[in-house]
Amino acid sequence: MTPIQNIRVTIWNEFLHERENPHVARIYPEGIHNTLMQALRHYADLEIRTATLHDAGQGLSRESLAQTDVLLYWGHAAHDAVREETVVRIHERVLDGMGLVPLHSAHWSKIFKRLLGTTCALRYREAGERERVWNVNPGHPIAEGIGDYIELPESEMYGEPFGIPLPDEQIFISWFQGGEVFRSGNCWTRGSGRI
Amino acid sequence: MTPIQNIRVTIWNEFLHERENPHVARIYPEGIHNTLMQALRHYADLEIRTATLHDAGQGLSRESLAQTDVLLYWGHAAHDAVREETVVRIHERVLDGMGLVPLHSAHWSKIFKRLLGTTCALRYREAGERERVWNVNPGHPIAEGIGDYIELPESEMYGEPFGIPLPDEQIFISWFQGGEVFRSGNCWTRGSGRI
Amino acid sequence: MTPIQNIRVTIWNEFLHERENPHVARIYPEGIHNTLMQALRHYADLEIRTATLHDAGQGLSRESLAQTDVLLYWGHAAHDAVREETVVRIHERVLDGMGLVPLHSAHWSKIFKRLLGTTCALRYREAGERERVWNVNPGHPIAEGIGDYIELPESEMYGEPFGIPLPDEQIFISWFQGGEVFRSGNCWTRGSGRI
Amino acid sequence: MTPIQNIRVTIWNEFLHERENPHVARIYPEGIHNTLMQALRHYADLEIRTATLHDAGQGLSRESLAQTDVLLYWGHAAHDAVREETVVRIHERVLDGMGLVPLHSAHWSKIFKRLLGTTCALRYREAGERERVWNVNPGHPIAEGIGDYIELPESEMYGEPFGIPLPDEQIFISWFQGGEVFRSGNCWTRGSGRI
Repeated sequence: MTPIQNIRVTIWNEFLHERENPHVARIYPEGIHNTLMQALRHYADLEIRTATLHDAGQGLSRESLAQTDVLLYWGHAAHDAVREETVVRIHERVLDGMGLVPLHSAHWSKIFKRLLGTTCALRYREAGERERVWNVNPGHPIAEGIGDYIELPESEMYGEPFGIPLPDEQIFISWFQGGEVFRSGNCWTRGSGRI
Repeated sequence: MTPIQNIRVTIWNEFLHERENPHVARIYPEGIHNTLMQALRHYADLEIRTATLHDAGQGLSRESLAQTDVLLYWGHAAHDAVREETVVRIHERVLDGMGLVPLHSAHWSKIFKRLLGTTCALRYREAGERERVWNVNPGHPIAEGIGDYIELPESEMYGEPFGIPLPDEQIFISWFQGGEVFRSGNCWTRGSGRI
Repeated sequence: MTPIQNIRVTIWNEFLHERENPHVARIYPEGIHNTLMQALRHYADLEIRTATLHDAGQGLSRESLAQTDVLLYWGHAAHDAVREETVVRIHERVLDGMGLVPLHSAHWSKIFKRLLGTTCALRYREAGERERVWNVNPGHPIAEGIGDYIELPESEMYGEPFGIPLPDEQIFISWFQGGEVFRSGNCWTRGSGRI
Repeated sequence: MTPIQNIRVTIWNEFLHERENPHVARIYPEGIHNTLMQALRHYADLEIRTATLHDAGQGLSRESLAQTDVLLYWGHAAHDAVREETVVRIHERVLDGMGLVPLHSAHWSKIFKRLLGTTCALRYREAGERERVWNVNPGHPIAEGIGDYIELPESEMYGEPFGIPLPDEQIFISWFQGGEVFRSGNCWTRGSGRI
């Protein structure tokens, strides 16, 4: 078996909203990538770096990707700004074994659509309503320690139908106060990489 | 290509509740199997028969199964009364190509558990609450003509986690007023048969 | 249920090899698309048309695709000649419900890679060796009437590892005299379409 | 994240053939379970025990299973001797999270058929012929370090069609000199357990 090594994590953020919207800037003054890094910092076996769209190579150069085992990808409003060559670099690295964790609206990112091949469209509504994320796969490592569900008091609604291929593993399904459901935790294997 | 033939459907009902509970008997005086047959009667390409637990061979003899292309199986309170040899006959016929449509609590029937190999347990509550059955696979033949969802004003709640293998196709996911979600329309292929 | 209608099939061929290579031209003087059409002609419920890369809209205009239920796509040496806008049109039509049957080297076509999101690379050798196409899913409609296997006396070898997502259904696995295996009959559902 | 702990492995063998057949006894004088234990001994993070059909509780008591993370199960000629209550105990423990690695003819064991729900039948021939186990999933941890294929000079042939549900992951497909193929490395998730 492989000796246990640290996992090299890169937290990438398009980092647009925090700079243009004063309300968002107050919540995440250093960008949501830094907030996420604080949250993950106490896991001793993670080596964490951050990167943004505004760095060299859009923050995702070939060298940087080669040294990343897992990429957290936060996308929201700047999907179009991600260049074709950046998408190609991420795509090759995922097929070669990197894990990809698409966050927030990254379902609509070029790389997510490139990997899954479908519309990846969904229904949404900004309502600040209650969401319950049900754990439908209690034995899965991702769901470890979570219990039956997580409740979020004020959430943006993402709902079905969600234009994705059948997931290779289904972890979470969300319930929304307003009457919708959503496959909110899904895994796919593509090449040697996991999404 | 195979010439189009009629589809031979058997609607099987344990037919217990309607005989023991006066309230249920008033709603389905001739048993829910006959109510279902009325509903399906106008499809000209279906040849429909009914059978119950109280018929010879528990209504599912080798001969009867051999002449069935699709079995609608309504189970509720009499799962234990279905004998091992009956389960073996259904199991062999499904693997040999018969379709099986488990209805109501048939998730807890011996044949369903035999085919899927898992607990098939779920969470439930009798509450008469609102259920929305979301169509997450609009291109699937089963979902044809349904639109985004079906709303049931008073429904018994069945919820996650549901102890099933990952479905081979996911058609419906239900939302319940009380806060639960449920994978309510799932397809599996086992042997040559479809569930 | 939907009344049975004819299935509108388009057989598309890049039609390059037959025009440039005299040996191939002798075998398929009118192009392999016409040979395939002859073979399928006796199925009364198919409405068959052919198209090639050299027709208007590269043979796959929006109007033509809209009137196609199933597209047989024969690709070999001209993948690069298929324009981005043509790929986008096919992609949208598949997600909207058209069936796609990629033939020969179409595993390497832009549309196949777009839909699956992986490398779609494989191992190959031109050897004219014996191939046995094993039927691993005898109950599947595609395998109907085939028996245990089909034997091809002289075949080009395509072998594993094949860079595809796990198929949603596995129909055929090929054995090659020279020592290789290949997942040669695979189905995927993407959007409302089937591949 | 969970602190890394040792993995508790139980190697179970029906241990019949080695005691009744002098030829087999010469190759595995202490039973194939002990040969396997020798092979795995140098992995420092494995705590290995062995058990056989002839031990108390058929070697698979509730206590013993509770202390097993991964069960290697070698079955060949004594499937009928495994009692129903033993099968029930293994089944519950797999659904509760234990890994199960069925070896040799364990595809035909009661527990494998119980978990998968299909015939699990296959084609076989005792021929001592060449087998090539192709690695079709190079990025999977099970395939780590294996390269393109493993070649076995003299092997018993197991061939398709193999009566199993579509695997959740496909790792190996075997090629046999005599002309067959076989899905020889397959993973399924059932409940919280992995097969």
